Amino acid sequence: MAIVAPAVADDGLGDYRDRFEPLPHLPPIPADNSLSPEKVELGNMLFFEPRISSSGVISCATCHNPALGWSDRIPRATGHDGQIGERNTPTVLNSGFLESQFWDGREPDLEGQALGPIEADVEMAMDLEQALERLDGFDIYQQRFAEAYPDDEEPINADNLAHALASFQRTLNTPDSPFDRYLRGDQDALTEQEKDGMVAFVDNGCIACHRGPNLSDSQFHRIQVPGSTDVGRFDVTGEESDRHKFRTPTLRNVAVTYPYMNNGATETLEEAVAIMGQEMLGQDFEEATIDDITAFLHTLTGEMPDFEVPALP
Amino acid sequence: MAIVAPAVADDGLGDYRDRFEPLPHLPPIPADNSLSPEKVELGNMLFFEPRISSSGVISCATCHNPALGWSDRIPRATGHDGQIGERNTPTVLNSGFLESQFWDGREPDLEGQALGPIEADVEMAMDLEQALERLDGFDIYQQRFAEAYPDDEEPINADNLAHALASFQRTLNTPDSPFDRYLRGDQDALTEQEKDGMVAFVDNGCIACHRGPNLSDSQFHRIQVPGSTDVGRFDVTGEESDRHKFRTPTLRNVAVTYPYMNNGATETLEEAVAIMGQEMLGQDFEEATIDDITAFLHTLTGEMPDFEVPALP
Repeated sequence: MAIVAPAVADDGLGDYRDRFEPLPHLPPIPADNSLSPEKVELGNMLFFEPRISSSGVISCATCHNPALGWSDRIPRATGHDGQIGERNTPTVLNSGFLESQFWDGREPDLEGQALGPIEADVEMAMDLEQALERLDGFDIYQQRFAEAYPDDEEPINADNLAHALASFQRTLNTPDSPFDRYLRGDQDALTEQEKDGMVAFVDNGCIACHRGPNLSDSQFHRIQVPGSTDVGRFDVTGEESDRHKFRTPTLRNVAVTYPYMNNGATETLEEAVAIMGQEMLGQDFEEATIDDITAFLHTLTGEMPDFEVPALP
Repeated sequence: MAIVAPAVADDGLGDYRDRFEPLPHLPPIPADNSLSPEKVELGNMLFFEPRISSSGVISCATCHNPALGWSDRIPRATGHDGQIGERNTPTVLNSGFLESQFWDGREPDLEGQALGPIEADVEMAMDLEQALERLDGFDIYQQRFAEAYPDDEEPINADNLAHALASFQRTLNTPDSPFDRYLRGDQDALTEQEKDGMVAFVDNGCIACHRGPNLSDSQFHRIQVPGSTDVGRFDVTGEESDRHKFRTPTLRNVAVTYPYMNNGATETLEEAVAIMGQEMLGQDFEEATIDDITAFLHTLTGEMPDFEVPALP
């Protein structure tokens, strides 16, 4: 039996809406890391756990700060001993929807991503074995790892640490943004200007790379934003064709994850839209177009995910 | 009409119980800083706000981490550029019940305390005027300060920043610990060993300084723990009689606010009890006494306060 939709005035933009996808509540779950409540809860603890940094004061949540759109709102990440990294911190929100991780895509998935910042000298600067030893020193972690990985004889290991962190991160999604409500049929969820912005976003070709539920194709594109000398994916592959290529970032929650670009040198969304027009599309957008697209991008801010700050041992 | 209590077997320790006070749900509120929901909510935002540090990455919650008993679980605080301070971070839990703030009591109340760590070179290393300018740059702070301080023409100022932070901190209390339930009449809330610990705590004189609802007299006592050369309150007053004096720390939640002492050099509660026996009471406690007192101290861990990680602008 067909469900009859209530009669609403159609805004005539169905062809545009069809180019987009609303964000599901969960991203794809990999076959080798089923999403269990035990792993998510353990991952939640580990995400906030500063003892897995060498200083004992930096956790994943330090740079991926839930108060700041799960990012840090500074140009480039500040890590161990106040060192400043090379790139802007990506938000972890909806990162499970990305098919490659880090600005240079050097890891394919969250399991691969999770341990990198723990070991990186300019981030948490921690020896992985020592991190695991510290966790092993707490009864509660022995218990929680055993519950999350009941088949493992020695459940506190690097793979399980990465799997638990990845599992928690897969729960940090922001469905039900105004744009999602619009795509699902609430034609009043967007203002006229926001709809104009959606149209401009499609007609100008932004959607070529910023597509799919997370507004990212997870592919690599050449871009050299003002002030950046970063060679991007070239550092990963050594291929000349990858020089200055970066993975397309998500646009979900982009209004609350400033500043922008790989070097974090772009403060405002308006500037970011203008730069992307110039660098990627060879266009100088009119101010009105920039304003419209910016208004549209604001509709991609969803409900922040529920989580608890854990009581750590 | 008298309320008749249910008949319960009395454990015969009423004289001991009378020496203690359960923790109220709120500490005293100063006449010049009434506790309003607007101030508390603003203070909650500011407590998690890293933009009031010069690096933009350190907030009050960095060292007073809600995941770690609102402290940091390292010996001495790590602040700006990885600098390590001189003293162990006190928990903010129940700090509104203390009548002097900081290890050396250099401020009488939370209003006086709040701005110190923002300006301290080894903590947030921030110029206060610049902190206020940064806050002024966000519409939401202009709005929230105006709502919290409706009579002020320029509500974003240092006093109001301090008052809001103090207001939030006064809500971070942990009533209803097992010991509070015991004091309120639930004679089964403590085990026999925990009761033995309470008795030992009183009979050995720990209660002389660790008294009142927060288990602190807020007074200054001479102590030089192993490894410490810190002159304590002498730095504040310049009085020889204050050399090596420190304000009595609270024992509320002491089991989850390790490590201990002004220099954070004491890892375990058992060691801390033994050291206090030697240094303050001139006694070498028996191992059984140490175990009993430690068991009692564990009953001072209350329910962690409700709070929200704010969505910052």
